[in-house]
Order: sequence, then C-alpha cells, then structure tokens
Amino acid sequence: MAQYSKVAPTPLLKDELDIVIPTIRNLDFLEMWRPFFQQYHLIIVQDGDPSKVIKVPEGFDYELYNRNDINRILGPKASCISFKDSACRCFGYMVSKKKYIFTIDDDCFVAKDPSGKDINALEQHIKNLLSPSTPFFFNTLYDPYREGADFVRGYPFSLREGIPTAVSHGLWLNIPDYDAPTQLVKPLERNTRFVDAVLTIPKGTLFPMCGMNLAFNRELIGPAMYFGLMGDGQPIGRYDDMWAGWCMKVICDHLGLGVKTGLPYIWHSKASNPFVNLKKEYKGIYWQEELIPFFQSATLPKDCTTVQGCYLELSKQVKAKLGKVDEYFVKLADAMVTWVEAWDELNPVEGKAVEANKVVAK
Amino acid sequence: MAQYSKVAPTPLLKDELDIVIPTIRNLDFLEMWRPFFQQYHLIIVQDGDPSKVIKVPEGFDYELYNRNDINRILGPKASCISFKDSACRCFGYMVSKKKYIFTIDDDCFVAKDPSGKDINALEQHIKNLLSPSTPFFFNTLYDPYREGADFVRGYPFSLREGIPTAVSHGLWLNIPDYDAPTQLVKPLERNTRFVDAVLTIPKGTLFPMCGMNLAFNRELIGPAMYFGLMGDGQPIGRYDDMWAGWCMKVICDHLGLGVKTGLPYIWHSKASNPFVNLKKEYKGIYWQEELIPFFQSATLPKDCTTVQGCYLELSKQVKAKLGKVDEYFVKLADAMVTWVEAWDELNPVEGKAVEANKVVAK
Repeated sequence: MAQYSKVAPTPLLKDELDIVIPTIRNLDFLEMWRPFFQQYHLIIVQDGDPSKVIKVPEGFDYELYNRNDINRILGPKASCISFKDSACRCFGYMVSKKKYIFTIDDDCFVAKDPSGKDINALEQHIKNLLSPSTPFFFNTLYDPYREGADFVRGYPFSLREGIPTAVSHGLWLNIPDYDAPTQLVKPLERNTRFVDAVLTIPKGTLFPMCGMNLAFNRELIGPAMYFGLMGDGQPIGRYDDMWAGWCMKVICDHLGLGVKTGLPYIWHSKASNPFVNLKKEYKGIYWQEELIPFFQSATLPKDCTTVQGCYLELSKQVKAKLGKVDEYFVKLADAMVTWVEAWDELNPVEGKAVEANKVVAK
Repeated sequence: MAQYSKVAPTPLLKDELDIVIPTIRNLDFLEMWRPFFQQYHLIIVQDGDPSKVIKVPEGFDYELYNRNDINRILGPKASCISFKDSACRCFGYMVSKKKYIFTIDDDCFVAKDPSGKDINALEQHIKNLLSPSTPFFFNTLYDPYREGADFVRGYPFSLREGIPTAVSHGLWLNIPDYDAPTQLVKPLERNTRFVDAVLTIPKGTLFPMCGMNLAFNRELIGPAMYFGLMGDGQPIGRYDDMWAGWCMKVICDHLGLGVKTGLPYIWHSKASNPFVNLKKEYKGIYWQEELIPFFQSATLPKDCTTVQGCYLELSKQVKAKLGKVDEYFVKLADAMVTWVEAWDELNPVEGKAVEANKVVAK
C-alpha cells in the first residue's frame, strides 16, 4: 500500500477541490499562481466593505461572496461568520461542494525549493492528504510514504497502514508566522530554512495551525474547521486558525484521523503590522494559557462518532469550562453551534447520501 | 534565554563527554573522525573473543574493555551485559564518569551537508543536548532554539522556556536503519534526503531509538539507557536500542525530560545481512506488537522521582505484564534490576555528592 502511493502520479483532483481565498483587495497575487491554480475553482470570500469591487485576474474560474451574500445565504446564522478578519474564510468551506479545500492568503506567493524550482504547493498538499498519517508512533525518517523513505526498524508492523489524513498544514519561507511580541523583538528575522519533511503530528499533541497555507479533506473534517468569532465586534483577532486547529486536532485524535505538517512551503511576502497585531492578540496571548490545558485534557465520549457530534460536544465543554475564563467563550460556544447548524443546512445529509449513491452508480 | 543559547558558541565539553564505541574489529573508521573526536576520551567496548587485539589508530585517548574486563569489574552482575551484540555498549555508559555520552557504530562515517561540508555530528549533538526541549506543544518551525527560528504564533508563552534535554537522536544518510523484512523488500533503497531539522519528540509519543548515532546526558538519564539482554544465549537481537528507547522515553515523560531527534546525520556505510538480521529480529517483530501498547500505557507513580526509582518500577511492570508474553521478559526484568544495582555500585551517590561539592567550591 505504501508502495502504491509512491508510484502513482499525483491526481490533480481538479473537480474535487476548491481553493478558498479571503481578501479585501484585488487578487493580483493569483498571477503568480496561474500555472498551478488556473484549473481549479476558486471561492473568494470578500471581507470588509461589500460595495468595493475586487478584481480577479482573467481566466480564473471563481465565485465571490461579500458580506451581503453571506447575510443573504445564512440569514440570522450569518452571525457565526466573522467580519473584518480572515476568519471569514470558513464561510468558503461551508459553501463548497467539493471533497477537498485548499486555503491560502493573498500575500502568499510561490516559493522556490533549494534547487531554484517553483514549488507547486497545491500538489504537495494533495500528496499529503492522499497518503495516510501515522499519529500513533513517531517515524524518525519522517513521512514513511514518501519516495525513498519507509518505516524504520522498530516501527510496529500493525501500525504501518496508517490512518486517513484529514489535514495538511504547510509552512512559509521568508516572513515566519510569529506573534506580535516576537515580531516586535525580531523584526528582521526571516525563515530561510527549507526543511524537506512532512510529518504526522502525533496523537495527543497540539500544534499552532496557521491558516495561511492549509488544506483539508472537507468530508472528513469540514464541520470542525470553524475559524471562530474574530475581528469586528469581538475582543480578539489572529486566533481564528489557532482555534480551528485546537478543536480540529482534538476531534481528529478522537475519530482516528491524521494531521500532517511540513511541506509545502509558500513565500510569505509581507509581515503584518506588529502594533496592530498586538492589539488583536493580547487577550489571546493570556487566554491561550488556559485554552491549551483545556484542549490538552478535553476528551470526547465514545458515542460521538461524527464530526458534527464531536463539535457540538466540544462546544458544550467550551461553554462550561472556558466560559469561566471570559464571557466571550460563552458567545463563541453558541457560535460553534450556529456554525454546525448552518453547515448542515448548506450540506444536507440527504444530498450527501444521494451524491454517494451517484458515485457508486457510476 | 532562547536568544542566549543562539549567540553562545557551542562548548566542546571535551572534559565532560565520553565517546562509547562497541566493536569487534580494528577501529580504522576513527581516521575519518579524527578532526572531530581526537580531543575526546573514547570508551571502547570490545565484543566477542577477548583474546583478539583491537587496533586503535594512534593519537586517540581511550580505555578498552573486553569481556574479561566486564566480568572482572562486575562479577556476577556481568550477566546483565549482553555478549555478541552491540548491546554491550551500555557497559561503557556505566563505567564512564562524564556527564555526557556520545555513542556511534564503527560502520558510521562523516556525512556531508548539502553544501558538501563535513558534518561535525558531535557538535550538533552537544547543541541539541544543551538547548531545551519542548515536548508539551509542537512547534511547526521545528527547534525554536535554532538560529533563525523561534516559537510561532499560538505557542503558549508559559511553555517557551522548555525543559532539559536528556537525549539527542541522530539520523543516517545512505543506508537507512530498516528492519530485516524492509531490507529484503528494498535492498537498494538509500536515504539521500537531508532534512535540516531537529525536533522534540512530543510527550506521550514513542519512537524507534537507534543506537548508531546517539547522545545523552548521563546525569539526567544514564541509568535508563540499558540496552537489555541480546545476542549470545538470548532469543532476540537488534532490539537493544529499541528497548532502551522505549524505557527511556516513558521515564523522560514522567520526569519532565526532553528527547530530540533529527540532525546530525552520519554516513552509514554498510547494510548488515538481512537474513542474519531476520533471525535476530523475528521474535522482536511479533513481540513488539505487545511491547508498544505496554509502553504506551505504562505510567509511573508520583513517588518515582529518580531515574533509578523509575527504572526499577518499570522492571516490575515488565515482569508482571510482559512476563506473560514470554518468559524472556522475566529474565529481562531481572537483568534490569541487576543493571541498576551495577550502575549504582560503579556510580555511588556519595561520590556524586562530593563531586557536586567540588564544582560548587571552585
């Protein structure tokens, strides 16, 4: 099986994957991605003033949603979608009808590998998502399914089939994804180290998931990829992807799904303003000291067997335990429920069953 | 603190580190290591026929122990030291009086980094051991203490000091450390991928520790680095380092010590015979299916606060639980106790206290 995934060419999945881009500006950055993205469908989530016209370079196939669209489609449930924060991107996950999502920020460009070749980030994400994960035991030569690698001596044979991969977390050359305090202390630090590895985050281990360069299997984990309440009217920003990452990881661990990090790299062009970031982050910086132990000790009951079920259970625990940290988490817990309701409305189970039948009937 | 570890030059630790080499042949391989090893003291553990003379290249400072020496020094307790298996190397850990150990196989040579420069493996191990570990949360840019790297956004600030590093596990270019079945299936596979990363193995995660290129802090974890009963008269071989790795990791997790893997690479020159290996390994291959769950669920009581205490407790659990898998584990559990007794005999606590005083008095 490992052999199989190595020799097969990477499927493009062009009819099974949407690229979700949150933005407030013209999408000139797509020019650089044209060779890699043009065959795919884009879902653009326009943040901020809906009357502004976002220009998309010619030749791209896209649908675009602004705040008016979100309000129209979700009605009162639109309250769960953040405004004036890139957290709004998760609306794109919800309206997609595809199996896979790749999401990227509009200040991310094509990176080069050490040989100078342009990196097809999307292709690497697809490879990551289509090969299994190994969260139960660490393989010292990293991803055992990559060409030229395997499981090392001492790796239990019963674990070598791995489990399905739900999430592929890519990294960034140039501007690293630092918090405001680190940005302030190290304004000139750039990430120049190309680490040629993909690895599974072990079961029971949390990590800081960044939304800049991220792909996931929407069918396996979609309803857990809620980016929370951030930005306009909220006491916090820049924790949208972190929140999603912590919730998602607890649920993946519970359901037996894998999460990978490492390749592919994108080129992150511009550091955001550390002073603005500090204002957005400061509550998160102290809240996270209580959030991490909460998520590290969170357990889900055995009868939670669907992502939605897990997510609703987690929302209850958030309300009960984090509600004491700040009232914000009561609101967030309610929004988590609204999110799942909205997800199910736009993604009815019946429709899914029909779709599954269709595939079988082919 | 992170800053500090970055700007300081790597201390050589030449009076605080021993290099332990198990061997059955002349140590010509040391010629290639001369620029890196010559300042250090070597402890050579001669396996097999004690009447054979092992030649050591001129200019190296070493002590050599053969089986007769081991029997003389340990008396009846010598039974815990394996014969005709590289597991005998752990005798070297026991007789060392230094704080750090680096152990390397005699078929391992100096590897080159992608720029073609010789890799000073020992220097990298020292860097790994002297900078903290971060097992409680995964940092997506790998070792946050390396130059040019740091903790990423979303990493809790309370965890950024890290914890002391007990073990540094290095990797191998050229011949990968595969088990016999994988060797048989992929006789020509070579590891050519240089992954420029060091990372902490998360708490609660086990990994296959290879003894070929390994360093550790003897004061922090020495008594747990027992390589078990392998080779002559035993039903199993090639699981010596694995056994040590599983025991050591459970104890490190319990005591709050860190384990790193990744850089440095050495060049592993020659694949061992897969048919011979299969004979040594086959019991291990099925036993490990029960060993891994055992170690994954092993917990140590709070009052185990020393490595010795933890190790003796673990030996009891091995006897009680793995004794049912095979009688061999009863014998191994007894040998674990003998090992700790022998360790304490050669490393009396009084002597240690005196030594500590000496350091303070300086």
